[in-house]
Amino acid sequence: MPDSPAMHISVKGHGLDKYPAKSHARRVTEKLEVAEGLLVLAATPSVLYPNSDQPQPFRQDRYFYYLSGCNESGCYVAYDIHQDKLVLWLPEIDKRKVVWSGRGSTVEEALEKYDIDDAKYISSSDGPIERGMGRRTTLEEDIQQTISLGISIYSLPDSLPDSLIGDWLYIARGGESQLQYALNCCRVIKDEHEISLIRRANEITAEAHKAVLCGIHGFTNEADVEAAYMGICIARHAREQAYSPIAGSGSNASELHYVKNEDDFGHSQMMVLDAGCEYSCYASDVTRTIPLNRRHPGTWPSEEAKNVYKLVERVQEACIVEMRPGKSFVEITRLSFDMVLDGLLELGVLKGEREEVKEAGTHYGFFPHGLGHHLGLEVHDVAPQAPPQSDGQSRYGRNGKREEERGREGYLRSHPHLPALPANFDFAITTFPANDGAPYADADYPDYSVLQSGMVVTIEPGVYFNAYLLDNFFLHSDKHTKFIDKEVLKRYMPVGGVRIEDDILVTKKGYENLTSAAKGDEMLKIIRESAVGSQEA
Amino acid sequence: MPDSPAMHISVKGHGLDKYPAKSHARRVTEKLEVAEGLLVLAATPSVLYPNSDQPQPFRQDRYFYYLSGCNESGCYVAYDIHQDKLVLWLPEIDKRKVVWSGRGSTVEEALEKYDIDDAKYISSSDGPIERGMGRRTTLEEDIQQTISLGISIYSLPDSLPDSLIGDWLYIARGGESQLQYALNCCRVIKDEHEISLIRRANEITAEAHKAVLCGIHGFTNEADVEAAYMGICIARHAREQAYSPIAGSGSNASELHYVKNEDDFGHSQMMVLDAGCEYSCYASDVTRTIPLNRRHPGTWPSEEAKNVYKLVERVQEACIVEMRPGKSFVEITRLSFDMVLDGLLELGVLKGEREEVKEAGTHYGFFPHGLGHHLGLEVHDVAPQAPPQSDGQSRYGRNGKREEERGREGYLRSHPHLPALPANFDFAITTFPANDGAPYADADYPDYSVLQSGMVVTIEPGVYFNAYLLDNFFLHSDKHTKFIDKEVLKRYMPVGGVRIEDDILVTKKGYENLTSAAKGDEMLKIIRESAVGSQEA
Repeated sequence: MPDSPAMHISVKGHGLDKYPAKSHARRVTEKLEVAEGLLVLAATPSVLYPNSDQPQPFRQDRYFYYLSGCNESGCYVAYDIHQDKLVLWLPEIDKRKVVWSGRGSTVEEALEKYDIDDAKYISSSDGPIERGMGRRTTLEEDIQQTISLGISIYSLPDSLPDSLIGDWLYIARGGESQLQYALNCCRVIKDEHEISLIRRANEITAEAHKAVLCGIHGFTNEADVEAAYMGICIARHAREQAYSPIAGSGSNASELHYVKNEDDFGHSQMMVLDAGCEYSCYASDVTRTIPLNRRHPGTWPSEEAKNVYKLVERVQEACIVEMRPGKSFVEITRLSFDMVLDGLLELGVLKGEREEVKEAGTHYGFFPHGLGHHLGLEVHDVAPQAPPQSDGQSRYGRNGKREEERGREGYLRSHPHLPALPANFDFAITTFPANDGAPYADADYPDYSVLQSGMVVTIEPGVYFNAYLLDNFFLHSDKHTKFIDKEVLKRYMPVGGVRIEDDILVTKKGYENLTSAAKGDEMLKIIRESAVGSQEA
Repeated sequence: MPDSPAMHISVKGHGLDKYPAKSHARRVTEKLEVAEGLLVLAATPSVLYPNSDQPQPFRQDRYFYYLSGCNESGCYVAYDIHQDKLVLWLPEIDKRKVVWSGRGSTVEEALEKYDIDDAKYISSSDGPIERGMGRRTTLEEDIQQTISLGISIYSLPDSLPDSLIGDWLYIARGGESQLQYALNCCRVIKDEHEISLIRRANEITAEAHKAVLCGIHGFTNEADVEAAYMGICIARHAREQAYSPIAGSGSNASELHYVKNEDDFGHSQMMVLDAGCEYSCYASDVTRTIPLNRRHPGTWPSEEAKNVYKLVERVQEACIVEMRPGKSFVEITRLSFDMVLDGLLELGVLKGEREEVKEAGTHYGFFPHGLGHHLGLEVHDVAPQAPPQSDGQSRYGRNGKREEERGREGYLRSHPHLPALPANFDFAITTFPANDGAPYADADYPDYSVLQSGMVVTIEPGVYFNAYLLDNFFLHSDKHTKFIDKEVLKRYMPVGGVRIEDDILVTKKGYENLTSAAKGDEMLKIIRESAVGSQEA
């Protein structure tokens, strides 16, 4: 039998240390400020596609992983707060299925692999979480006893099947919003083990990006780029991606979440490659913008392409050096917007009085997203958003579906680190953020964007020339069209878009850039040397 | 904007022919034997992972695709039987989201791309399926009117949201089992267009398998194999796989659905590579078993490895030539079991009287799966199973979950082309199929395995040495252990497993092998020549 992915962790200075699930459980309990009770979280079950006998790709529930370090399906993890005891419940092994698809961990293997106090099989009738109550119970019995004893169960929405908690549904789910809030408070600050996993994901991602740079002179289609990138990730045991790779050339570079990756380069000038793998469920998120220049590989295909790249590079560097504990991320975001505004005025794409253009927000038509977001178990990682609400307000969906669209206010509360254009923003009417003070400064909305040591946040400014966005909103609107120089814009449209993105760890004294993929001059050099090398060979 | 995947179809002799959705709708109607009514099927919606803002990988519902040829999310297709009119309902385009993730087809683009009579936006209040009722209605109104007029709606379980059919739920869903049966009857016989897509998927898969053969002398880990294979698939615009690639070396080769693909080869003798891409939602399914021989690439690492390969090769060839219209697939399956039995007796792994061993079924311990299955929109494609039942009996799950496990009888009825060991088969007690007549010969269960022209069926015999299966069942059982020569078995265990699989089209006169990936001597030659070539370079 092959060993588990968890055994492949090779972390500098940490060797084969276990994922610190117990420490996470303790931190969450501290944040909950309760002395007893049971935290119960469910792993993602194995599910088939509807009308199919094929399994959907398995992706572990991140809250479950945070408290268990276990990447297996169908498990439960239970933490007894009073006893400080973390127990993992495993599906019983069906011997008849092992020849088909192997098996999950045995109790013995789980105790060896995971940072837990005990492991039990779910359907085993003598598998208890021992609560000193003098008799052994199943998980179901234990939960029902716990409730009848008046001890709170904290579980996230849908973590527990109805069958498990029966009539106690309401009581059992009362703690969901507090638990989610406590988990988010903990998850936003990464410990050493988590940082080492994000670092490892970044190392593999950097190697995969390098394979693209080395091959780009011979590629003709976006699919070639994705193939080169994925080939390295898969070979390095990181086939799971933190998000679908984006390899957009020419105008596709201006579609922010472009994932088709199927077009020929044609006369495209630039390629946005936004791709980052996962490692042990931890994400990397890296964007590089690569010149496509068949005649002179590794040099800018036009003055305009160079200008836009240099602008975005300048913005990114200026924002990164601002990263430190105590700094408001909203302020850094404003800096990036201002620098893009100034840069576009300088290039002549925008024209008019700086303050008037800024007031109108015309520059958002070329930088229509936020500067960055938390990174961790999710590529857009959770953060302590608003204080816990009785309605369990969350940016995330339940039952796998996004919640009903909320208004601007809800958006602002739930996206503290993405203070740019919300999805439902009406480009033609409003600008955002308003000049008259950040919404985050309101008394009702404390600034959750203040950076703390241990946070990992992306810095990813971009400048795009998206024909659809410009034609349908900004060039279509009296408010904006007067600030755009159509002749200059025409020269810049073929650039498509430029985005540069690194993953920044906030340290006690400042920051550390966890992303090692080549960019700027180093990137150009790799492309040039690879192209020369391949001609000589 | 990039064009749609559908435009990349390059089919010999078919050019840019549209996917024949209308013809499929007509065939299904004929099978239903009704003169009026409405077929309504829903596309898969876009869904986020629970507790995450990341989308689950999109995979189109196959029944919807069969009647639309449309690979976009959130659509409906409706076929008016009396009017012979096929209408596609598209989600309305949200202009504000286009800069983020592009958009689905417009009505105009859909009419251009798909074989439909009309296209409408779902939320448009004037978007009707015109039923000659003198007024225009929405899809919802139309369905409710249709029901109140006493016209049947045929829709699969869960195809229609409850909100759409309200109180008419029961009536509207009455036709589900007939519709599914009719769809399965049609889907099991592939038309020219479908065959050309399966052929194209096989071409790409063959090229990807070849990349593995060319690189295998330099690979050291199963992940290298998956990377080489996937690199070609992605570069050829076929990143979607018909199933998770299986790259199992050594003992991993004996786990039938092994997908971890992460182990070093070590001293493994053989590698089972079972991997096939999709093309325009149509599957390929190809298995090759590759010798791992660092010293002498492209030659068998042991006499035992060669013997097992030759046995499986012989079985596969003998079964393929039996493929023709009118032939029972159950008979061909029996042939494969008999040949494996004889081969293992010849090699000395099995011992004793042939008929006694056969009666015990000990050879199933080395060939614990069926000979093949239908292939099409699913890798394990649907087939007309039992006649339609009022309870809508189906091998597939609802709501993305597999139905409760059924007994042996249910299994036999729903897996006519997989007449080997069912998942819940108790290895130690029973053998299957029983010698005293195939269950398919019963009057209650007509032989659905009779081959017809236009079927595409895999032929995939295998011989495995799975320690878990043998130790826990066959060597553990008095009934079987006496027929196994433990000394000979010890020599064969390191072979792991061998499976060879091709996709066979049943033609009017016999068969055509759609799989072009190299196997046998041709495979060995490619490995040898690549290894030599790389040493010389």
